[in-house]
Amino acid sequence: MNRVFVHDQLIRFSHCDPAMIVYFPRFFDLAHSTMEDWFTDGLGIPLPELIRDRRIGTPTVKIDCDFVKPLRMGDTLRFELRVSRLGNASVNIDYRGTKNGIEHLQITQTVVFMNLDEAQATPIPGDIRQKLEAFLVATDNGS
Amino acid sequence: MNRVFVHDQLIRFSHCDPAMIVYFPRFFDLAHSTMEDWFTDGLGIPLPELIRDRRIGTPTVKIDCDFVKPLRMGDTLRFELRVSRLGNASVNIDYRGTKNGIEHLQITQTVVFMNLDEAQATPIPGDIRQKLEAFLVATDNGS
Amino acid sequence: MNRVFVHDQLIRFSHCDPAMIVYFPRFFDLAHSTMEDWFTDGLGIPLPELIRDRRIGTPTVKIDCDFVKPLRMGDTLRFELRVSRLGNASVNIDYRGTKNGIEHLQITQTVVFMNLDEAQATPIPGDIRQKLEAFLVATDNGS
Amino acid sequence: MNRVFVHDQLIRFSHCDPAMIVYFPRFFDLAHSTMEDWFTDGLGIPLPELIRDRRIGTPTVKIDCDFVKPLRMGDTLRFELRVSRLGNASVNIDYRGTKNGIEHLQITQTVVFMNLDEAQATPIPGDIRQKLEAFLVATDNGS
Repeated sequence: MNRVFVHDQLIRFSHCDPAMIVYFPRFFDLAHSTMEDWFTDGLGIPLPELIRDRRIGTPTVKIDCDFVKPLRMGDTLRFELRVSRLGNASVNIDYRGTKNGIEHLQITQTVVFMNLDEAQATPIPGDIRQKLEAFLVATDNGS
Repeated sequence: MNRVFVHDQLIRFSHCDPAMIVYFPRFFDLAHSTMEDWFTDGLGIPLPELIRDRRIGTPTVKIDCDFVKPLRMGDTLRFELRVSRLGNASVNIDYRGTKNGIEHLQITQTVVFMNLDEAQATPIPGDIRQKLEAFLVATDNGS
Repeated sequence: MNRVFVHDQLIRFSHCDPAMIVYFPRFFDLAHSTMEDWFTDGLGIPLPELIRDRRIGTPTVKIDCDFVKPLRMGDTLRFELRVSRLGNASVNIDYRGTKNGIEHLQITQTVVFMNLDEAQATPIPGDIRQKLEAFLVATDNGS
Repeated sequence: MNRVFVHDQLIRFSHCDPAMIVYFPRFFDLAHSTMEDWFTDGLGIPLPELIRDRRIGTPTVKIDCDFVKPLRMGDTLRFELRVSRLGNASVNIDYRGTKNGIEHLQITQTVVFMNLDEAQATPIPGDIRQKLEAFLVATDNGS
């Protein structure tokens, strides 16, 4: 429990818009990159293998984002990734985006595990669930 | 009051991912295109002129999205845009995304009007406020 | 012979970079959109159907681009599309990009017809070849 | 002379299209990332500083690409960057793209040094020219 996946990404020229700040849809690309690297390096389950070999996809069904402060090219965006809810077939993933320790954005994403051949939600397989639990935020309610 | 800006966009090859559905960050690009065309065609205030001539930008400070059903290349996405809140320096914009009349996604975005030279939020200018009001969703509470 | 497919696209905020001009990789996205609409509206063969029903893809094996003059948000980019070479399994597609009649860029792309199930180049089917010929640039060499 | 800048990038889900291979315009984004990191790590001149402090931009005026073999998510793309021509105000940059030592694509790009305030090409400053020379491909013609 309580593990955090920390992931740094350089803000590039291509992420920025004519107002010289990150064009906000790019933050979802950056969060997706963090999720991919978390699957590979944090969970030990590379997404390409999950998709190709186990035919499980991870579509996003809900995403909320608060943009607190802008980011500019040359900045380093740090995402701290945590699992805030672990359901039967879905998880909530929180991304806290910081620069030099100061919060710039906050994303909460709900991802569903989906059997790609049946195009149906599927219970999270036991081996994956066990690995997800390590990143689950502990709650105070009696546990 | 109660005007709706209706905007159709073709889902293209480039919007879709290896799972053959729209890669979700692209929906925010599509919503941004709708917002741009709304400024030009719905409000009569092209964003490029707003940025260049009046030095007012419209950064997004919050965006929430529910993805109900996926979209595939060749589909036509219709966004119905409404203003759900009109504040002093910010607006909430709702996008209801449908295909053939069926809801596929729902986005709510908070946009702030910003003085680009001072990098500060600025009260919505009167001429723009008047035009925004036409798209404001009427509420039932006594009015 | 000698037909030209003319396609207008608005240059959007999202196409532009911190230098306030179109970020050049976006021009290839814009050219791809022109190609997609040409397949649908010019050839009468929508790409999604070609891919799904006939299992034929059109990967790009070569692309050259000269950027003559920049484009900015709010500009309208007009692409004039012509077929400059019609081979057994591949075509060369030329895109002349103009704004207000003045040339801003020139792209030449080689696209191969590929059997997606065998991942092999395939001779252009007769019905498609016939339609492509209408857009073939006539040459002077006696024919 | 003859230095090579070697840069590895992971091919991500977001780079790939419904045909399960990299959507070709993304390769230009990937090449741009290589160029950015080369400026920072190879030349010691971060592009954001060049743009902001010295007001010099590096727009692309010509780019040619041969796509030899496709790439898929999970692959690692290695770009080897060399300078193949060093002109008065422009350079040719070659990118050889490989996977496991096998060539997958080849890009040649012409970049112009531009005074951003005057929007005019500018001779390459001496300190930058000296650093570029280290990556210039030696030619055989007697020199």
